[in-house]
Amino acid sequence: MKTYGVIMAGGGGTRFWPLSRQELPKQLLNLTGKDLMVNETIDRLEGNVEKEDIFIVTNVAQAELMLEATSGRVREDHILAEPAARNTAACVGYAAMEILTKYGDGIMCVLPSDHYIKKADVYKSVIADAVKIAEETEALVTIGIQPTFPSTGYGYIRHGEEKTGAGYYTVRHFVEKPNLQKAREYLLSGEYLWNSGMFIWKASVIMSYLEKLLPDVYECLQKIGAAMGTETERDVIQKIYPEIPKISIDYGIMERAEKVLVLEGDFGWSDVGSWDALEALYDKDEYGNITYGEQVHIDTHDCIIYAKNKLVTTIGLDNIVVVETEDAVLVCDKNRAQEVKKIVEALEDCNKRQYL
Amino acid sequence: MKTYGVIMAGGGGTRFWPLSRQELPKQLLNLTGKDLMVNETIDRLEGNVEKEDIFIVTNVAQAELMLEATSGRVREDHILAEPAARNTAACVGYAAMEILTKYGDGIMCVLPSDHYIKKADVYKSVIADAVKIAEETEALVTIGIQPTFPSTGYGYIRHGEEKTGAGYYTVRHFVEKPNLQKAREYLLSGEYLWNSGMFIWKASVIMSYLEKLLPDVYECLQKIGAAMGTETERDVIQKIYPEIPKISIDYGIMERAEKVLVLEGDFGWSDVGSWDALEALYDKDEYGNITYGEQVHIDTHDCIIYAKNKLVTTIGLDNIVVVETEDAVLVCDKNRAQEVKKIVEALEDCNKRQYL
Repeated sequence: MKTYGVIMAGGGGTRFWPLSRQELPKQLLNLTGKDLMVNETIDRLEGNVEKEDIFIVTNVAQAELMLEATSGRVREDHILAEPAARNTAACVGYAAMEILTKYGDGIMCVLPSDHYIKKADVYKSVIADAVKIAEETEALVTIGIQPTFPSTGYGYIRHGEEKTGAGYYTVRHFVEKPNLQKAREYLLSGEYLWNSGMFIWKASVIMSYLEKLLPDVYECLQKIGAAMGTETERDVIQKIYPEIPKISIDYGIMERAEKVLVLEGDFGWSDVGSWDALEALYDKDEYGNITYGEQVHIDTHDCIIYAKNKLVTTIGLDNIVVVETEDAVLVCDKNRAQEVKKIVEALEDCNKRQYL
Repeated sequence: MKTYGVIMAGGGGTRFWPLSRQELPKQLLNLTGKDLMVNETIDRLEGNVEKEDIFIVTNVAQAELMLEATSGRVREDHILAEPAARNTAACVGYAAMEILTKYGDGIMCVLPSDHYIKKADVYKSVIADAVKIAEETEALVTIGIQPTFPSTGYGYIRHGEEKTGAGYYTVRHFVEKPNLQKAREYLLSGEYLWNSGMFIWKASVIMSYLEKLLPDVYECLQKIGAAMGTETERDVIQKIYPEIPKISIDYGIMERAEKVLVLEGDFGWSDVGSWDALEALYDKDEYGNITYGEQVHIDTHDCIIYAKNKLVTTIGLDNIVVVETEDAVLVCDKNRAQEVKKIVEALEDCNKRQYL
């Protein structure tokens, strides 16, 4: 059975502001110093999925930029442009319908476009296992990450007590981002994994679950599917897609499906959710700093300093994030990097749209 | 007797880097939000000195820019260009020789070009008193500032025990910048004033002291004076000036002259020696911040934030200085703002001359 890559790349850009923007979301940034996040995601599938079998689901506004940014990695007709953001059930359903209608059933590897993975070899091996299990068991397979600290920024998956011989757990339930106390309990219990947002399943299997558990979503997808390959395809998508109920695949399907399995992935994963997460990607210098661009420091420790255009200089700083871009500067307590979205909200509120 | 203004404007620009540069020293910055420091210095003399009797001593590299920046306030032939920096005894001597040779004796008000004075009316009145005393007593008159905190950044003047009826003290001695313990002692004693670097005296009197106490300096000045008003004036200055011994007027004359008097000046003075000194110039906002330019803050207190071109945003900062200019950004612990010169030194060391 053929294996497809489905890369979800519809996100906007608030968490890495001022580097990320509405028009330049995180997946189109080169945060690793090697390549754009989305290109790393594509290239990482080498050995698991043929390049020509990779799809990217993105929004209409980003589709052209995405084609350009991926520079030939992905077929133009495999960039699926959503006319409206309708959350992940719609996104997954659209890709499943595209595959089933135009190419026939296959295994879908549904992957976020903007995560970091340190050990590509381990990752490839886990994906290969997941593909095999999804094919053999007809389950919805997800990849869980062994927690290394009590994160309040990730969702969790509580797995069944015993790993099966095939190396996967059953899933008891999915848990939303917890508070710190809960997160500590989860970490200690040994029963919880981080929800990586990576899903592997047969297109036909997820479509059956959509029909059963989210019939309103399924009905829209059916209409779109009926138009696929005809002259009216774009028009129908344009009309129907915005009517798809907004619901996440986690909430709408994963938490309610009977047959869900989780594989442990120990490949140095980070969702790179805010500026401080760069510490997972880079080695610190002798002063504990992570730096990019032209800089001069005096007595500066444990900082993250990103200078895109200008010389950035610091004196006597500890645990501060400094980001300099063409039109904006951010200076932020490193422990509060997740509050960058508040800056973006404030800019929206005072109508400084040129910075969004 | 005529009163002349002699504004010393030869300083380079390190303390307000990255806003100040070698080519754009502090005296040519608008730090008050009203006008360039040098123009504020000139305009503040209104009522004490006629505009056409004001001289500016600056270096050759800055002379043209100075003429332009002062936009007609100062006569072109009153901008005295030093071919080399030879410290303040040379600078004062050059101006005294210019006045004596070309205009005849008069009172010189020797003033730094880059200080801040809050109460211009009080200042004018103190200068008027100083001029009168200098004329009547033939003393070297200086203005001392009542200390308000144990500053380690200023020199001090220890005055005689009793103020005379005319409102001035005799001077016991001048003291270099003290350590904190000494500064506290000075503050408690009530006998010390800050050395403001403002001097008022007759041109003929200071010239006599130069002859007596700094004969090597005087000899050079004599050669220059002999050429003044002749065709060889610029050539002689070009040749002789760099040979003048480097010595400050404080060290060379003030500490050694017999007749030195000090007037107290209580006019809200600051030498604006580093970024944190802006707190003396501006009212803080409700969060204790001083801000300039386009900004968005979240939970930011007691900071100084200067945004020249870009949007500057902050999250969770306390006591930090952020300065953004065309080509550089500075982020600095506010208590260490005086270390900005170390950045400039570091830039020199690594030969990044475009930022100097």
